[in-house]
Amino acid sequence: MAIEAGKTGERTAKIRLGMVGGGQGAFIGGVHRMAARIDDHFDLVAGALSSTPEKSLASGRELGLDPARCYGSFEEMAEKEAARPDGIEAVSIVTPNHVHYPAAKAFLERGIHVICDKPLTSNLEDARKLKAVADKSRALFILTHNYTGYPMVRHARELALNGELGEIRIVQMEYPQDWLAEPIEQTGQKQAAWRTDPKQSGAGGSTGDIGTHAYNLGCFVSGLELDELAADVHTFVAGRKLDDNAHVMLRFKGGAKGMLWCSQVATGHENGLKLRVYGSRGGIEWTQADPNYLWFTRLGEPKQLITRAGAGAGASAARVTRIPSGHPEGYLEAFATIYSEAAAAITAARSGTAVDPAVVYPTIDDGVKGVAFVEACIASSKQNGAWVKV
Amino acid sequence: MAIEAGKTGERTAKIRLGMVGGGQGAFIGGVHRMAARIDDHFDLVAGALSSTPEKSLASGRELGLDPARCYGSFEEMAEKEAARPDGIEAVSIVTPNHVHYPAAKAFLERGIHVICDKPLTSNLEDARKLKAVADKSRALFILTHNYTGYPMVRHARELALNGELGEIRIVQMEYPQDWLAEPIEQTGQKQAAWRTDPKQSGAGGSTGDIGTHAYNLGCFVSGLELDELAADVHTFVAGRKLDDNAHVMLRFKGGAKGMLWCSQVATGHENGLKLRVYGSRGGIEWTQADPNYLWFTRLGEPKQLITRAGAGAGASAARVTRIPSGHPEGYLEAFATIYSEAAAAITAARSGTAVDPAVVYPTIDDGVKGVAFVEACIASSKQNGAWVKV
Amino acid sequence: MAIEAGKTGERTAKIRLGMVGGGQGAFIGGVHRMAARIDDHFDLVAGALSSTPEKSLASGRELGLDPARCYGSFEEMAEKEAARPDGIEAVSIVTPNHVHYPAAKAFLERGIHVICDKPLTSNLEDARKLKAVADKSRALFILTHNYTGYPMVRHARELALNGELGEIRIVQMEYPQDWLAEPIEQTGQKQAAWRTDPKQSGAGGSTGDIGTHAYNLGCFVSGLELDELAADVHTFVAGRKLDDNAHVMLRFKGGAKGMLWCSQVATGHENGLKLRVYGSRGGIEWTQADPNYLWFTRLGEPKQLITRAGAGAGASAARVTRIPSGHPEGYLEAFATIYSEAAAAITAARSGTAVDPAVVYPTIDDGVKGVAFVEACIASSKQNGAWVKV
Amino acid sequence: MAIEAGKTGERTAKIRLGMVGGGQGAFIGGVHRMAARIDDHFDLVAGALSSTPEKSLASGRELGLDPARCYGSFEEMAEKEAARPDGIEAVSIVTPNHVHYPAAKAFLERGIHVICDKPLTSNLEDARKLKAVADKSRALFILTHNYTGYPMVRHARELALNGELGEIRIVQMEYPQDWLAEPIEQTGQKQAAWRTDPKQSGAGGSTGDIGTHAYNLGCFVSGLELDELAADVHTFVAGRKLDDNAHVMLRFKGGAKGMLWCSQVATGHENGLKLRVYGSRGGIEWTQADPNYLWFTRLGEPKQLITRAGAGAGASAARVTRIPSGHPEGYLEAFATIYSEAAAAITAARSGTAVDPAVVYPTIDDGVKGVAFVEACIASSKQNGAWVKV
Repeated sequence: MAIEAGKTGERTAKIRLGMVGGGQGAFIGGVHRMAARIDDHFDLVAGALSSTPEKSLASGRELGLDPARCYGSFEEMAEKEAARPDGIEAVSIVTPNHVHYPAAKAFLERGIHVICDKPLTSNLEDARKLKAVADKSRALFILTHNYTGYPMVRHARELALNGELGEIRIVQMEYPQDWLAEPIEQTGQKQAAWRTDPKQSGAGGSTGDIGTHAYNLGCFVSGLELDELAADVHTFVAGRKLDDNAHVMLRFKGGAKGMLWCSQVATGHENGLKLRVYGSRGGIEWTQADPNYLWFTRLGEPKQLITRAGAGAGASAARVTRIPSGHPEGYLEAFATIYSEAAAAITAARSGTAVDPAVVYPTIDDGVKGVAFVEACIASSKQNGAWVKV
Repeated sequence: MAIEAGKTGERTAKIRLGMVGGGQGAFIGGVHRMAARIDDHFDLVAGALSSTPEKSLASGRELGLDPARCYGSFEEMAEKEAARPDGIEAVSIVTPNHVHYPAAKAFLERGIHVICDKPLTSNLEDARKLKAVADKSRALFILTHNYTGYPMVRHARELALNGELGEIRIVQMEYPQDWLAEPIEQTGQKQAAWRTDPKQSGAGGSTGDIGTHAYNLGCFVSGLELDELAADVHTFVAGRKLDDNAHVMLRFKGGAKGMLWCSQVATGHENGLKLRVYGSRGGIEWTQADPNYLWFTRLGEPKQLITRAGAGAGASAARVTRIPSGHPEGYLEAFATIYSEAAAAITAARSGTAVDPAVVYPTIDDGVKGVAFVEACIASSKQNGAWVKV
Repeated sequence: MAIEAGKTGERTAKIRLGMVGGGQGAFIGGVHRMAARIDDHFDLVAGALSSTPEKSLASGRELGLDPARCYGSFEEMAEKEAARPDGIEAVSIVTPNHVHYPAAKAFLERGIHVICDKPLTSNLEDARKLKAVADKSRALFILTHNYTGYPMVRHARELALNGELGEIRIVQMEYPQDWLAEPIEQTGQKQAAWRTDPKQSGAGGSTGDIGTHAYNLGCFVSGLELDELAADVHTFVAGRKLDDNAHVMLRFKGGAKGMLWCSQVATGHENGLKLRVYGSRGGIEWTQADPNYLWFTRLGEPKQLITRAGAGAGASAARVTRIPSGHPEGYLEAFATIYSEAAAAITAARSGTAVDPAVVYPTIDDGVKGVAFVEACIASSKQNGAWVKV
Repeated sequence: MAIEAGKTGERTAKIRLGMVGGGQGAFIGGVHRMAARIDDHFDLVAGALSSTPEKSLASGRELGLDPARCYGSFEEMAEKEAARPDGIEAVSIVTPNHVHYPAAKAFLERGIHVICDKPLTSNLEDARKLKAVADKSRALFILTHNYTGYPMVRHARELALNGELGEIRIVQMEYPQDWLAEPIEQTGQKQAAWRTDPKQSGAGGSTGDIGTHAYNLGCFVSGLELDELAADVHTFVAGRKLDDNAHVMLRFKGGAKGMLWCSQVATGHENGLKLRVYGSRGGIEWTQADPNYLWFTRLGEPKQLITRAGAGAGASAARVTRIPSGHPEGYLEAFATIYSEAAAAITAARSGTAVDPAVVYPTIDDGVKGVAFVEACIASSKQNGAWVKV
C-alpha cells in the first residue's frame, strides 16, 4: 500500500476532497480529517461543514479553507464544486445518518467519489435507493467501517479466508459501551442527542451505531454471509427513544452460528468491540482496544499472540502497516487505511487503470447489509425474537 | 469460616465421608478428595468407587480405604454404612449424571448427608423427585457448583446484593471449551464418552456439562431469577449425540436481560468460564482462569482490579480466603470451600445448632433450576428458538 | 508423580510428620499443613508449635493432635519422638529463621528428615554448619523454595535445560511487594515484627525474605550458577532495622548477566515475583500471580502462551499437575508439590530404593547459596556496590 | 492543545518545515512526517533528505517537494532557505546521531527552529557545544523523546508532580527489544548498520538508542534528577562494535533509587519500554506497547486502570488527547504531540507572545543529560561498575 503518498517514484497529485458535516462540535469529522492527512493522499479544499452558511464558514476558516468554498449546504457544494475545473474529486460525508442518502446521491450523480460514514442510511429504503444511484454512477462509494482497516483485522481475515481456521463454526461479536448508561441525551450532549433521535438515526440506536460495526467486522473477517437472526432489542434508560442494548443470535449461510451483543449501557466498557471466530482447525480473538494483537490458536497447539508487523503477521497486515512492531498503531491509523484504500481506488479511477486487487474497503453493498441488519433486529424483536431472514 | 478444621478452640471431630464413583480413571473424584482434604474437615472412610466390586476394591486400596468398606454398589454401601455405629455421615456422589438420582436418594433416605456433583440429575423428572426426597430427609444436600466457592465470586455477589451495581440490567455468561472440537468420544476417551452419551448425561451435552455452571454462576452472583429463555442449541461435530454448542438469550424476572454461550468446540479455550454483570451504577467482570481478580467499575470512575485478600475485597471474600493476596488460590481451593461450607452445615446439624448465616452453598433447588435450564434450552431449540419459561 | 498417595497399586503408609512452629497467629505453618494434606502423603502427628508448652498445647488441640505429642520445645520433641516406635519420620520447620539451624540440627542428628522453610538460616556460618550436619546424617533435607513447585516453572526449566532457549544471556528476577511500605512492625504486626528483626531474620530483610526466593528461582530455571554480584541495598522506611529494597546486578558463570530487584515498599505489588530468561534462541517470562501461564518466544516466531496441562507443556510440568488446563492451580498446589517430592524421596529412603530421577526439590546446597546471596548483597552494599563473589 | 491547527478562531498559517535525513530506506523520517501531518500545523517544503543530491532529489520528488528545494546537503539547505523570504521556519533532523550536531548548529545559527531526533549527539562534547549554540540562538530546540507525548505518560507525570505518589522511592525503567539478537548489521540491514557503528552512533549502542529513551522517561515522569549510576554494559553478539545490553543501578538526588535495563537481545520483546514509579503513597506502571492504560495504586486501595480520556485521567492527559477513550491512540499520535507542542512554541515565538505554560517538550538540556547518561554508563562499566556521577 502506498501508505505515504507516492512512496515510490514521482508523487501523484493529491486528491481534492470536500466534507459534508464535521463542523464545530462534531466528533467524527475531525477523525476523518486526521485520517485523511496521515498518509497524505488528500487535500481538504471545500466543505459544507455545518447546517447554516455562517457556521459552515466559521468552521471552514478554522480549517484554513478558502471562504469561497465554504458552502451553506451540500446541494450548493455539489453543484458549485462540480462546475469548477479544480472542483473536489471526492467528498467525505460525516453527518448524522439521515443526511447520508441525499448528500451521497447529490455527489454520486455528479461523478464525485463518496467516502461516507456508517450506517449507510437511516432506513433500508434509502439504502437500496442509494445503491441504485451508486450502481449507475461512475464514481466510487467507500463506507468507513473503519475497524476493517486495522492490520490485525486484515490478518484475521487472511487466516479465515485461507482456511487456517478450518470450517468456521462460531462467530462471536460484541460491542459494549457505557457512555449512554444515563440519559445524557436529555442534557444537551450533542453526540448523544442525534444518536438517540429516530429522525436522525433511523430505527436503530445501539444496533445502528455500533451493532452494525460489530456485524460488519464479523462478516469481513469470517467471509460468511448472514442468513437469519433472532434479536432481543431493548431500551434500558427510561425516556430513551431508541434501543441501547441488543442481544442477537445469528445463523450464517453454510451452517455457522453466532451471537452479537451491542450495548451502550454496559458499565465499564469504553469501546469494547471484540471479535472471536472459531473453526474446526483454529480460533482467533481480536479486541479493538488492544488492536495490535491477535490471538490465534491452532487446535491442539499453544496459543499464539501475533503482533502487527511481528513474526507470524502475513502480507495483508504488512500492506497496511506503517511502523515497526511494538510501536502501537491506533484507531486513527486504521481509519487512515480506509482513506488510503479509497485513495488507491480513486487514483486508479482517475487514470483509468485497474486498482490493485489487494485494495479492500467496505462498499455500498456492505452498507445495505448493515441497514438490513438493523431493520431485521428491530423486526425480530417486535415479533418476540422470531428468526428473520436478512 | 473455619478454613482449617477447628482453627479456634478444641478441634471438632472430622466428618466421616464416603464416596460413590471416583475410581481409577475418573477425573472429578480425585478433585473432590483433594477438596475435602485441604481444609481437613473430612475423613474418607468408605467408597463404592467403581461399577464392579473388584474395581471398587482396587480403587479403594489405592486410597488406603479399609477393604471392608469398599463396596460393589452404592446400594450396598448405603445400607451397610447406615447400619454401622461409625458409619459415614456424608457421601460424595461423583458419578455420571444418571446415577445421581438413585444414589442420592439411597443416602438421603438413610439420613446421610449428600454432596453431589452437578448437574443434579439427567432429567427434570428425576430432579423433582430427588427434591421431594431431600425435602423429607433430615439430611442436607449440597450441590458442587464449585465456581461459587471462589472468593472473588463471593465478592462479586456481595457487590450485587448490596446494591453496589445499582439495578442490574445485563448478565453475560459464557463457558467456552475446545476439548470436544473433534469426535474424541469415538476413540474411547472416557470423560468424553459419558458426557456425550444421552443415557448417562441426559438431554444436554454442553448445556448440561458447562452451561449449567455458567447459568448457576450468573444467578448466584446477580441474585436474579430467570424468567424465560430462547436457545439455539447445536451439534457441530458429526456423529455426536448431544449438543456441543449453545447460544441462549435470557430474560430475568424484574427486567434484566442476558446471554449465555457454552461451547465445547471453541478452539483456543480451555475452561473459559466468564461472568459479566452490568447495572445502572456499576459493572463487574470475572474470569475463572484468572480467579483471584475481579474487575469492578463504578459508573464514571476508573476501573478497579480487586484482588482476593487485597484492598477492596469484602467480608464475604475474606471468609473463604486461606492465604495472602498475590499468592493465587485456584480451582481446588474454590472446590474446598464448597466442602468447608458443607462441613459447617453438617457440623451444625450434628450438634443441632444453627448454622452460621454466612455459610452459603448450592442447594437442591439450584440443582432443579439447572436441570430445568437444560431442558428449557432443548425445548426452545426444538421450537426454533421460541421463548420458553423455566 | 504420585500426586495422590498410592495412586497406583497398594497405598503406601503415610509419612508421620511433626511440626516446629506454626502455632496460633502464624502464617506459613498453616500453608505447610494444607500443602502436606493436598496429596495425602503425610499425617501430622506431633508438634512443638509455639514457644511455650501452654501455647503449643493449645495450638495442637486445635489441630487435633494427641496432647501427649504437643511439645514445649523442639529439643523435647526431637528427643521424645526419636524414642517412640511410632515417632515422626519427618519434621517441618516453620519458625523464624534463627531457629532453623538448631532445630534442623536436632532432628537431622536423630535421623529424622527435615522439611525446612527458607532462608536456610539467619547467617552463613550456621548455614555451613547445618550443611555439615546434613551431609553426615542419613536423613534428607528439603528446603521449601515453594515456587519451584509450579508446573510452569518446571516447564520453563525444561526448556532452558533442553537448550530451547539457546545460550542463556540474561536472567531478570524481581520480587516486589508493598506490605511494608509503612512501619507496620512498630504496630505489633507479628509477621512484620520478626521479619524486620535482625536477631530473628539475620542480616537481610527483603533480601532474605523474598530476594532469596527470586534468586533461587532464577538459578533453578536457568540452570546457571552465580559468580558475583553488585548490590545497592536500602531501607526506605525510617526506623526499620533491615533492608526493604535491594537492586542487584548479577554475573553468572559462563557469561550470562542478570538483575534482581526485591522490594517490600513497591506500592501496588502483592507478591509480584517474576522471572524472565533470554537466550540466543528463545525467551521466557513467568509471573507468580498468574502461575498457570508461561510466555515462550522462539526467536523470529510469534509469542506462545503455554498453559499448565495445555498444548506445549512438557513432561516435567505434566508430572506435577493435578487437574486439567484452564482450571487454575495455585500457590498451595505448588507448595504441595514440594511436599510430594519430599514424600517420594522419603518413601524411597524408607524402603532403601532409589528415588525416581524425575524427583526435584531444593536442597541444603540451595539453602547455603541463598544465605550466601544475602550476605554477598549486604557485603557489596557496604562496599558501595563493589562486585562480590558468592 | 490546538491538536488540530486553528481549532478555534481563524487558522494560523502553517509552519514551513524542512527535513534533514529521512530519504528512501529511512525509518524515522517517515514517522516524523506522519507526526507532523496529524495535527496539521506544518507544511513540509524543503529537504536535504539523503547524502547525495541525486538521492535527495529522488526522495523529495516522492514527497512532492519542489525540486528547487531538494538540497544535496544540510549546509546548502540552511544557507539557501535562510535567504528565501518564504524559507523554512523549522527543520526536522532525522539523521544518524553524528550528524545532529553540525546540522542543528547550521540551522540554529540562522535562527531556524530545530526539531531533532535523539540522542542529542554522538558524544558529550558535541552535546555541550550544541547547547552553547542553542543558548545563544533565538531559535527553539525540541528533542523528539516521543514517548513523553503519550497522554498516559503526561498523566503519570501529573500524579508524580502533584504528590499523589507521595515521596518517590523507586524508579524502574526498562526497554528490552530483540531485533539485534543476531548480527543482522553484518547482512546490510541499514537500521542495524548505523546503530551499531560507533562512528555514526557514538559510544553507546543500546544505551544510546533506547537506554536514553527509558532514562528520559523516568526523569520526565518522576521529576527526579539523577545523581550517579553504576552500570554493567555488555555486548552479547560476537563481532558487534557497540553494547547490546546494559544493566544500570541509579541513585537520584534526594534519595530515590532505581534500575534501568535496556537490551536489544531480549528475545520476545519488540519495543518493551516500561516505566514503574513507587512512592510512599502510591505507585504507577506504564507500558509503551499498551499506551492508553496507566496502572495506578494508592497505598491500601485497589489498583486502578486509568485510561486515556477515561474517568480519572487528568487535565494534562486531556490536553494531548484527540479521540474518545476506548479508541486507542498510538505511537504516531504521541509523536504528533511533540510536533504540536513544538508548533505551539514556534507559533508563540513567531508572534512574540508567551507560550502557554502547559506546553511541554524535551529540550536541549534533556538532550545533554541523555548523552551524559550514555557516557556515564560506558565510564562506569569500564571501571567495573563503579558509581559515576552524571
